[in-house]
Amino acid sequence: MGFSQIAIIGVGLLGGSIGAALRAAGSSAQITGYGHRIDTLHKAAEYGVIDRWSMDLAHAVKDADLVILCTPVSLFEQLLEGIAPAVAPGAIVTDVGSTKRSVVEAAHRLLPGHCGFVGSHPMAGSEKRGVEYARADLFNGATCIVTPTADSNPEHVQAIEEFWTMLRMKVVRLSPEEHDAAISDISHLPHVLAAALVAMQADSSLPLAGKGFLDTTRIASGDAAMWRDILLDNRDNVLASLEKMKKQITLLKKLLNRSNSEALKQWLTAASDRRDRLMQQKLRELSGD
Amino acid sequence: MGFSQIAIIGVGLLGGSIGAALRAAGSSAQITGYGHRIDTLHKAAEYGVIDRWSMDLAHAVKDADLVILCTPVSLFEQLLEGIAPAVAPGAIVTDVGSTKRSVVEAAHRLLPGHCGFVGSHPMAGSEKRGVEYARADLFNGATCIVTPTADSNPEHVQAIEEFWTMLRMKVVRLSPEEHDAAISDISHLPHVLAAALVAMQADSSLPLAGKGFLDTTRIASGDAAMWRDILLDNRDNVLASLEKMKKQITLLKKLLNRSNSEALKQWLTAASDRRDRLMQQKLRELSGD
Repeated sequence: MGFSQIAIIGVGLLGGSIGAALRAAGSSAQITGYGHRIDTLHKAAEYGVIDRWSMDLAHAVKDADLVILCTPVSLFEQLLEGIAPAVAPGAIVTDVGSTKRSVVEAAHRLLPGHCGFVGSHPMAGSEKRGVEYARADLFNGATCIVTPTADSNPEHVQAIEEFWTMLRMKVVRLSPEEHDAAISDISHLPHVLAAALVAMQADSSLPLAGKGFLDTTRIASGDAAMWRDILLDNRDNVLASLEKMKKQITLLKKLLNRSNSEALKQWLTAASDRRDRLMQQKLRELSGD
Repeated sequence: MGFSQIAIIGVGLLGGSIGAALRAAGSSAQITGYGHRIDTLHKAAEYGVIDRWSMDLAHAVKDADLVILCTPVSLFEQLLEGIAPAVAPGAIVTDVGSTKRSVVEAAHRLLPGHCGFVGSHPMAGSEKRGVEYARADLFNGATCIVTPTADSNPEHVQAIEEFWTMLRMKVVRLSPEEHDAAISDISHLPHVLAAALVAMQADSSLPLAGKGFLDTTRIASGDAAMWRDILLDNRDNVLASLEKMKKQITLLKKLLNRSNSEALKQWLTAASDRRDRLMQQKLRELSGD
């Protein structure tokens, strides 16, 4: 099952890259872009990542068989309210947000029964923003987490999984709750720690930063408002992740205070080995395994 | 003033890269490599990063006007004891260690008065080990911290600074104490946090790691024994850095607990802007400003 009319709600880096990747995959779907900045919509049309656009949400979605929310997560509820009266019977709505419990709950509450919602989190992106950074290969080989619930229509879930697979993503299925807990540890916590590492430096230390520091803090260059929204939306999990990190720091302080050379080496070796295995796995995935 | 006989003590990634960079810079110095593995010495000679080698420390250093310690920091004291009876009058000894107070103190205590010691920390490297990863351009545009004390001979300090400048490094002068404190924050802490981020993940979360996680944890793939030695050698500073990070986490938890949206955005924006300015500065430096 393919989609023939796709509405992309928010044509930034992710929305634009979906359009570009659809074209690269040979999709003949008509792509409608929705946004609130006419400049962005003009650019997106010029780059060929959308076929047409509308600044009227109901108009943008009314003929679509797939609607994809590609804005910051903080706008999802308001967008779902606007989509609800206009969305066509049988259409499927999904999103690309970094948190899943809230959007799944809001879609269940706000969308009419004649359409379906399946949450998605394509784990691809950049610290860059805007349709000018859209890339047809942004999703290649990366993981997309799809988060159905007991209420989801299995055909809708399958259609959404096929959609991301067509964009060359590796699909993983998790519940919204599992997603938000795991992503807090593996994505949201690294982001705030990168920001904390930058924040805690003395002005005099920053010029001494080497490649290691720049790599470790790269993700701290992300969009602050978007990350604020993600962190607040996933607050309980992020608090739990921060607590886990505090425990690691307490353990480390203990090993250092006792000059426990053997245990410190074991701890560092375990982390180094685990990171190496992960990297090898990811390289195998990217090479098409 | 140039050096004509250089002894590289430990011909791994850094020692080998110094040899390669000297050749690339057109130096005509004779380079002697010292090590305890004959295979490594053979390889280094084969790659042309040393001219000759010796497995006898006294023999390796006796004709040198520059001796560079390129082993893990934990071996420095023992090596300085071995060098002391053999080092030539007027020779200068330096090192490439990531900590500076301990080696400066040991050199002051162990080396004879007729030679000079000036500590160095060329901030270049890789998570890779071994002479097979040596590169002539490893040091290009990177920072080298030189750590003289009140006892240092100004001519020796100048000669060492000129040496690293010839290897295309940007030289910064700090006291050993200033060095160890700043580097704890900007290099040692990021390393242990990267390791902690890997250590705290559930097995089920790791497959969900994206590019952000891989970048943030890249340095966790370093050599565990080397990092154990660095962390223990700089223990007081690393403990202080960990305490600063704990405070950042406590602040963040407070902002999240209160859902303080505005303060959270400000904190994230400040980190993002600061990281962007740092990156721009580093790119300017690398482009030869």
